Formats: sequence, structure tokens, C-alpha cells
Amino acid sequence: MRLITLLTDFGLENNFVGVMKGVICRINPAVQIIDISHNVRAGDIKEAAFLLKNSYKYFPKSTIYLVVVDPGVGTRRRAILVKTKNYFLVAPDNGVLSWALKDEQISQIIEIQNNRYFLKPVSNTFHGRDIFAPVAAWLSRGKAPQVFGKPIQKIKQIPYPVPEYQPPDKLLGEVIYIDHFGNLITNISQEEFLKFTKNPPTKSGQAKFEIKIKNYKISKISHSYGPPIKQPIVLVDSFDNLELALPGGNLAKSINIRKGEPIIVSRKK
Amino acid sequence: MRLITLLTDFGLENNFVGVMKGVICRINPAVQIIDISHNVRAGDIKEAAFLLKNSYKYFPKSTIYLVVVDPGVGTRRRAILVKTKNYFLVAPDNGVLSWALKDEQISQIIEIQNNRYFLKPVSNTFHGRDIFAPVAAWLSRGKAPQVFGKPIQKIKQIPYPVPEYQPPDKLLGEVIYIDHFGNLITNISQEEFLKFTKNPPTKSGQAKFEIKIKNYKISKISHSYGPPIKQPIVLVDSFDNLELALPGGNLAKSINIRKGEPIIVSRKK
Amino acid sequence: MRLITLLTDFGLENNFVGVMKGVICRINPAVQIIDISHNVRAGDIKEAAFLLKNSYKYFPKSTIYLVVVDPGVGTRRRAILVKTKNYFLVAPDNGVLSWALKDEQISQIIEIQNNRYFLKPVSNTFHGRDIFAPVAAWLSRGKAPQVFGKPIQKIKQIPYPVPEYQPPDKLLGEVIYIDHFGNLITNISQEEFLKFTKNPPTKSGQAKFEIKIKNYKISKISHSYGPPIKQPIVLVDSFDNLELALPGGNLAKSINIRKGEPIIVSRKK
Repeated sequence: MRLITLLTDFGLENNFVGVMKGVICRINPAVQIIDISHNVRAGDIKEAAFLLKNSYKYFPKSTIYLVVVDPGVGTRRRAILVKTKNYFLVAPDNGVLSWALKDEQISQIIEIQNNRYFLKPVSNTFHGRDIFAPVAAWLSRGKAPQVFGKPIQKIKQIPYPVPEYQPPDKLLGEVIYIDHFGNLITNISQEEFLKFTKNPPTKSGQAKFEIKIKNYKISKISHSYGPPIKQPIVLVDSFDNLELALPGGNLAKSINIRKGEPIIVSRKK
Repeated sequence: MRLITLLTDFGLENNFVGVMKGVICRINPAVQIIDISHNVRAGDIKEAAFLLKNSYKYFPKSTIYLVVVDPGVGTRRRAILVKTKNYFLVAPDNGVLSWALKDEQISQIIEIQNNRYFLKPVSNTFHGRDIFAPVAAWLSRGKAPQVFGKPIQKIKQIPYPVPEYQPPDKLLGEVIYIDHFGNLITNISQEEFLKFTKNPPTKSGQAKFEIKIKNYKISKISHSYGPPIKQPIVLVDSFDNLELALPGGNLAKSINIRKGEPIIVSRKK
Repeated sequence: MRLITLLTDFGLENNFVGVMKGVICRINPAVQIIDISHNVRAGDIKEAAFLLKNSYKYFPKSTIYLVVVDPGVGTRRRAILVKTKNYFLVAPDNGVLSWALKDEQISQIIEIQNNRYFLKPVSNTFHGRDIFAPVAAWLSRGKAPQVFGKPIQKIKQIPYPVPEYQPPDKLLGEVIYIDHFGNLITNISQEEFLKFTKNPPTKSGQAKFEIKIKNYKISKISHSYGPPIKQPIVLVDSFDNLELALPGGNLAKSINIRKGEPIIVSRKK
């Protein structure tokens, strides 16, 4: 049994997601379909790239990732199929795959052009249904990537917002995602945080530090959300990034944070 | 493998949808279930009829469409099973199937009455669980439609809001659906639009036209959403209706539109 | 084919639910997964307990219920696996299973401790992915409960809010759940209501009664939602509890009710 995952900004009110699944099942009734999310903010390519990057390693080998966050639908942006050592990915070439593919070994990139595999007539506004879903479905039936179009060398990249070192003692990051619980996921990985706070090495192995968001300052890493308190805490989240949370509450709402809010880590003496 | 699709107004907070799926799987563990949507506006039969009409053709032959938007649950409204040339549909007889069935060749209509196939005791408020889900599940296991009740001749119709010709040069339509992106789907099909604007024939093949919503006037059909602008555009949507959109934005929210808002197409000389 | 159901407070915006499903499918590609709900209010153990209690009987025998409403993730709360006569349940030991298990015949309780079956490294904040999902998946592949840890005798209980008899003629209940339609589900079961109103027995078999919420008084049980009116009605809901509703409307919003609102049933002479 082959698995196709879906990640879109289509929401769940419309019939869009259901129709894509219908198209897939008509081509391959034996496929299994799993939703990663359909509530990516409308047209937010970076949010989809972030969710895909944090999701794809958890699925079985040979999974086909179908990603349709496609504000440029109907324009000249390309449609692509990427084969890596472990997976297949199908999406518009707008950068949405680029963060997930950073650590993957890419073996093939195809520009999807062979309309023999499209649902016709191809609409101007719903390539998820007319191009991406059928291609993913045929792929799940065993068609080779090259039947869908011609090989290309590169996919579009969007820059990952890496934290910035500000000498002598600051690391500037930002809130890159806000989850359902109002927890703030930062772009500072545990690895970067440790590298920053352990350099120069101190007797204790790690320098004292302070993490600042708005006027809140936190100076330790917690290991669970713990009982309700009125102060934000910092944890390492399940995808290995620093995460700020309000135990028993919704931090994003409580202190009114949006994506992009600066986070400053300072080394203390 | 047989496929059952679900379309309801149950929302996704409760256990209602999950329980229906449990009931189905208990009867037919091998069935595949796909959600069309569970976020139909509470009790909005027309919205469900619209979504079903725009969805059902995309699913495999012999799919069973289970539609439970049922404000009359517990009253004397009938429960029906309709067999067409290609599909099966199971729903309350409140008109919710009537738009999808307009172009289908109906071969059998059954009033569902045989409580042998119901989940007992049958509640007054959740026939989705107690009647519709079990009937769809037994149908997916191969039971013939006639075992569920007696044949009837007609189902309840609800009138489709067809656009109105206002001589000499206006076509009056309305917003029939607003999608997740705030795009406004009208009741004017591409075919009707072309028929209207090409009659009388002009040298260029199509008369000049103007499409008006509130105080906004649009005089061309766009072929993609394109880059963000401050003006509404008109496209032909993926279900062949005229659609109004705000590139890079949410038109419904920006200009405060609800379903039913008038759209006027005028022929220009 | 084995069935795993999911009940969480993870919401559907993030990748959390999708990732759990990926982890499950990697261990058991042949499993079927059904969502009960992912929109339990964040950290609301009682709401999840209520939904589970009202759902689990509708699924096939041997279904594995995976419940992750886990505000104590990363603390010393236990992870448990419960085998009953008919089902398997996997959850944090915070009481979330206790209402569903009241009428079930428990055959085995295991404290989940064997990290051989965990996804490593185990994070501090996402045991749904790292512990509960893999255990449910291995269980669905036929592993015996005892391989996951050591038997224990008891699970944590949370008290079910039973209605209170106030002599001589009142029964005090409360709103225990508000559904998608704004209907108010009370903690007064049909059985308790009948026992209360039939005692002492009257000539008609049932005493006159009045059900009061805020300033609204209702003195009969309706059998359907019926046509829109401006007055609340009372029905027996599909899970056998008294339910208050506003025909054609949303009662919770109309009269501004939250969970916990008192309901008073009075016997009349």
C-alpha cells in the first residue's frame, strides 16, 4: 500500500480537499491518504515549508508528499516532482519544498508537463485537483517520475530565517511559528542555542543566559509545561527548536505575539 | 474496496463524525471513508447541495455519498437512498440531493424504512448515526437498494438560483458561495456568461461587458489570481462559474460580502 | 484490519496529528485510523473524557483508542494501556479514560515503560508522537499489552459530575458539554430524569415538571428540533442525556451559556 500525504491551505469548509481525494482514489483506489494540515494560512508558502520540514521524516519510506500552497496557480510558475533517496514530493515550484529538501539527498527533479496525466479540462485556479493530485496518484501506482515531464536541475529556494549572531554576546532570533496552544516556536535550534551558550566554555559547561521576548526575560530551560503560572517559560520543542510557552495558558494571545516577533538570547557573565 | 463520502454540518469539535465512522466500520471494516466537508453552515441545505453538486463527479464509480444536513431530524421528513447510473446517494429528503441529481440518470429511489438495518434504539436527534450511516455501510457491503424500503417516484427539489435576464442588456446573478480564501462564487456559469455576452454577436465575437458588485466594476475575465492588487478581479472558477477574487487578499472580508449579494453583468455597446 | 481512533486537543492547524499518523503507519502500514476529534479544548481532560465516554461503544471490537489530552506531558504522570473485554485504550493516566471505563470490564492495566517501543529520542513535549502513537501502532500489530510495561492495579479517576437531589422537589444539574450547534448537553440522563419525575408515582405516571436554565422555563420534553422558534426546548439527546436546544438557532450563543451553567429540574404538583 502506498501513502500520499496532503498539505494545503484549502481549509476544511469547502469541498476542495475532498475533491482532490476523490481524484486520487479514482486513479488509485488502493492508496492511503493522510492529512498533514489543510489550515496553512492562505498563500503562506513559508508556513507550509516549515510544517513540511517538521513532518516528512516521520512518514514511511516512499511516501508521496503532495503540497498545494499555490498562490501563483495559473501563472507561469512550474509544477515539480522531486524524488529523494527516501521520498517523493509533488508541489508548485515556489519554494515550498526547499526547507524539507535541505537535508535530503535529491535523486531526480522533474518539471511536470505531460498533460496525459492531468484531469481535463485543466482549470486556471485548481491545479491541486487537475495536475498535482492526478500526478501523485499515478506516481503511487508506480509510474516513473520521468513520464511526467523533463528533468530539471534546480528548484526554487526560499531562505530559511537563520538566527543572527550579534557580537559580542547576543543571538537574534524570531518567532517562526505559533502552534494551536499558543506556544511560540523560534528559529533557534537547540544545537545553535547550545553552541552559542557554551562558547566560550565556562566551568559549568554552559554560560548563564537570558532569553528575552518583549519585556519578558527567562533564564532557564524548562523540561515540561508544568503547572499553570503567570510567566513564560522556554523549552526545547519536539522538533528541536527553542519554544516559549505559558504553562496552563496561551502565550501568543496573552502577550499578543505574531510570527516574526524578535527573540534575543544574551550570554551573561 | 468501496468508498463512502461524508458531507455534514456536524463540525469537527464533537464526536459526531467519528461516531458515524465507527458505526460504518463496525458494519463494513473494509470500506474507505472520505470527508467532503463537515463544516457546512448549520442546517444550510443549499450550501450542502452546492458542495455536493460540485464534488460528486470527481469520485470513483459506485461511490456512496452520505449527506447529513438534516435540520428536520426527528420530524416526518423522509430518509432516501438514490441509485443513479454511476453512484449511490443517502440523505434526508429535504432537497439536499436535488442539485447534484439534475444531470444524473436516476435509476432507483428508495424511501428508507426497514429498521432491520438501523442502529437501535433509533434516537430522535442523530439519524446520521442511527439510520444513514448504517444504511450506507450495508449498501457498501452489497445489499441491494430495495432491501432498505419501498420505491418512490420523486425526491424533494429545491430551486437552483438561476441568473435572471433583464432586458435589454443585464444579467442578474448572485453570490452563491464564499470559499475559504474569501473568493465569491456566483450562480452565473461560464456558459451562461458567454451566451449572454455573445448575443447579439459582435465583430470581435463577444460584446464588451461590465460586471458589478457593490460599487466595484470589472470589465475583463482574468486567467489567474496574479500578484496582489487592490481591485477585485473576475475569473472562471474550477467548477465553471464566474468567481470574484481579490489577488493576494480576501475579497469577502475586504468588501464585506455575504451569500446572496447581487452581481450584475451588463452588455456594453 | 485493525482500527486506531484518535482523540486529542492538538487542533488541525499544526502538523501534530499528521505526524502521529505517520509514526503509526511506519510501524503498521495496514492499520486504519479514524479521528474522533482533535478539537478538544486545550488541556480539557474532562471534555475528552466526556467525548470518549460517548463514542467508544460505537466502534468495532478490538479498536484501539488513542487519547492524547496531556497537559502534564513531561512530568511524572504515568502513561497507561488498558485492555478491557472489548477494547484497548492508550493515554496519559490523568483521568481521561475514567468515565469511559466506568461500565467496561477491565482485564489489564499496564504502565507503559518499555522504551524499546518508543520513538527516540523521546521529546519532553510530544509524547503523543514519541510514546502513545508507537505503542498503539505496535499493539495494532499484535504485541501483547504486557510487553509495554508492568501491570498496575488502578488508573486515576476524575469524578463525573452527577446531578444532585435537593429535597423535597429539585434535581440540580449542569451543562456538561456544548455541541457544534450550540445545543446544551446536561449531566442529567434520561434515566435519572425519569426516576426523579416518576417518584412519587402520579396517576399519569409522571409528575409535572419544570426545567430551568437562567430565566427560561421549559415544562415538556420535545421529540425533534422542529421549526424555528424563540424559546429553548428540551430533548433527550442521542447519548441519552437531557439536552437544551433552540430550534433553528444556537442556544449557547443566544442566551450566552458556558459549560457549568446550572440546570434545575423541579417536580410540580
